[in-house]
Amino acid sequence: MKTLSILGSTGSIGTKTLEVVRQFPLEFNVEALASCSNLELMGKQVREFKPSVVCLFDEEKANTFRRKASPEVEVLSGKDGLKACCTLDNVDTVVNAVVGSIGLEPTLAAIEHGKNIALANKETLVAGGDLVMPAVKKQGVALIPIDSEHSAILQCLNGEERRTVEKIIITASGGAFRDWNKEDLAHATPEQALKHPNWSMGAKITIDSATLMNKALEVIEAHHLYAMPFERIHAVIHPQSIIHSLVEFADSSIIAQMGLPDMRLPIQYALSYPKRLSNPALKPLNMTECQDLTFWEIDEDFYPCFKIGLEAGKIRGTAPAVMNAANEVAVLAFLERKIEFLQIPEIVDSVVKAHSVEPKPSLQDVLKADTWAREKAQELIAGLRETEKSDFKRLGLRYLWRFEGFL
Amino acid sequence: MKTLSILGSTGSIGTKTLEVVRQFPLEFNVEALASCSNLELMGKQVREFKPSVVCLFDEEKANTFRRKASPEVEVLSGKDGLKACCTLDNVDTVVNAVVGSIGLEPTLAAIEHGKNIALANKETLVAGGDLVMPAVKKQGVALIPIDSEHSAILQCLNGEERRTVEKIIITASGGAFRDWNKEDLAHATPEQALKHPNWSMGAKITIDSATLMNKALEVIEAHHLYAMPFERIHAVIHPQSIIHSLVEFADSSIIAQMGLPDMRLPIQYALSYPKRLSNPALKPLNMTECQDLTFWEIDEDFYPCFKIGLEAGKIRGTAPAVMNAANEVAVLAFLERKIEFLQIPEIVDSVVKAHSVEPKPSLQDVLKADTWAREKAQELIAGLRETEKSDFKRLGLRYLWRFEGFL
Repeated sequence: MKTLSILGSTGSIGTKTLEVVRQFPLEFNVEALASCSNLELMGKQVREFKPSVVCLFDEEKANTFRRKASPEVEVLSGKDGLKACCTLDNVDTVVNAVVGSIGLEPTLAAIEHGKNIALANKETLVAGGDLVMPAVKKQGVALIPIDSEHSAILQCLNGEERRTVEKIIITASGGAFRDWNKEDLAHATPEQALKHPNWSMGAKITIDSATLMNKALEVIEAHHLYAMPFERIHAVIHPQSIIHSLVEFADSSIIAQMGLPDMRLPIQYALSYPKRLSNPALKPLNMTECQDLTFWEIDEDFYPCFKIGLEAGKIRGTAPAVMNAANEVAVLAFLERKIEFLQIPEIVDSVVKAHSVEPKPSLQDVLKADTWAREKAQELIAGLRETEKSDFKRLGLRYLWRFEGFL
Repeated sequence: MKTLSILGSTGSIGTKTLEVVRQFPLEFNVEALASCSNLELMGKQVREFKPSVVCLFDEEKANTFRRKASPEVEVLSGKDGLKACCTLDNVDTVVNAVVGSIGLEPTLAAIEHGKNIALANKETLVAGGDLVMPAVKKQGVALIPIDSEHSAILQCLNGEERRTVEKIIITASGGAFRDWNKEDLAHATPEQALKHPNWSMGAKITIDSATLMNKALEVIEAHHLYAMPFERIHAVIHPQSIIHSLVEFADSSIIAQMGLPDMRLPIQYALSYPKRLSNPALKPLNMTECQDLTFWEIDEDFYPCFKIGLEAGKIRGTAPAVMNAANEVAVLAFLERKIEFLQIPEIVDSVVKAHSVEPKPSLQDVLKADTWAREKAQELIAGLRETEKSDFKRLGLRYLWRFEGFL
């Protein structure tokens, strides 16, 4: 029986994690649940899974929840509350399914307390990989990815000698706009970007799929998780999302992990690792019923975020934290209709270029860079909006320039 | 350094095995080479690889070879010679790349002498699986398949708990006639059947690919090698031969092994197992350059051999040995233009139906059944040829009946 603390329990990964927990009452139980502010769903989850500790990041919501909750449940709040959920004595595994760089500190706290991590929070490794991986090694804990791509890689590496790995090949669906013309991207709306062709996921990550920033983040994560140099990690577009990733070995043999796109499989694998559990809710793939499997090179002109994100990853130091924070702000601004779809890469690129990289950052440096990048991105967005209002023609020219390759 | 004895060294698998050996002089050396009768190539191989022992199955050829060979090389012949090559003290691994049921006894002799087996000979497991696998277990040796499909399965099982295997999925190219109409198969010539779309292999196995009998044999082999019930072994047509086979686990995750079709990879893996060796001669697959990957159900009407072969496998006892021997004779008769392509399944089916199955056969029973089946098949072929000469019209009607589903 593994005892879990689930951060982000009311989100897309969190609710699916609880679906898996529900199916294996003899394998998993829940000690702590943490969320941002979704009182209603958290109330339901607490009634069903009976955790001892709950954290609501929003202090006001935590107070409201505390008044209504059973006195047996301890209700915490804020960053300290999140960290407390990660360090409870009887917790074996922390599921970190928080979205954004807020996930970094709790991961580090959990590792320091000897907890295994089931990791869905991309920022933990993107922003903090150089801090997290040495801590994982030092504490001898397991950091198991929940992401379908990294879970696939882990499964492909089973029983293999790491030094014989030649190449990691991460697949990308190509996101909502993969069949669009580049010219039409300028008018892409949040609603259109949120229509992911294969996966049902949270809003931020679905936009990151449409820009392919998610693949840059995943390459950076794979670099840290599997100690692979960037030049040995490739990404390809695989529109059917059936092959979740592949590993090529020294003898040119390729091992691939496949299945229907269902996040419950990588979640369950992260929880049961290294075991596999039979789960009738997970529908097997019928090879003769699936579409033809195709693979394309990534067009970096079409997906500028992929290149911008990857370059920041290669710079290392505080650069990936800054890139990631700027992207988070830009995606939010796009979802709130404050910027256009094609302004996401522009903003991320501008923020990364304006940043003075700290090459060997401490946790504090990473968090400071993150805060700086958010402010810088917001400043740029505000500036763009000024421009938009005051000088529409100039903005029109910017669009033209962008399509002509000048910007 | 592994010391090898290679049975069938002048055949398709044998020569490719020596290509691999040539590339890894520090990993492998050759103690014995055995072939049927190819004096010229054997002479070259002996000069290059300097084995201590050579066997030529054909006694006359062995005598010729003995007269010309260096006195340092011991030249043996016949079945006893083959067996002697398998039991030499300093041999670690016997590569059994003999075609046909002649391969069974040497495998058993090697296992009894504690040798590991790299197995390309299908008949060892098809005819003798119930004898071979208990011997492998008892002697604690490794039986590593050279076949691309079974090598793929072995690679997919790396690091996995065998009890979590839900299903083995073997891929089939579909052979030379996969895009033909059923009506045209009656007139298929040996030349046409020998044009394999993806793999370069020996003649017998290439015809078995065209009839899909090879897939029935492989399912039976997988049943023995991986102790899987027949109902958990599926075969699908995958015309591109890029995915070499797949394993589905209890959690619905599928692991697949992929690569360009090149027999040197499974050969090298069988020799280096459980290690992988870097080999620049093995070209890696570029996912974005490969064709779309497709998968079809097997049409048993189009490929009657698949069903006939598999049913014999399920009967067990002497039935698979008889099926296999009859197929060997029928394929040879087709290659020699003594029968038509569609008479291969007819003959195999008739021989299996005429056989009284011994349910718990000894090695002698298996060999006796094999001999009986060969004679029976030859008798049927002779009978068909009589018919053909004496009553062409009746034969024409048989063709019609066959296409109408009466035969």
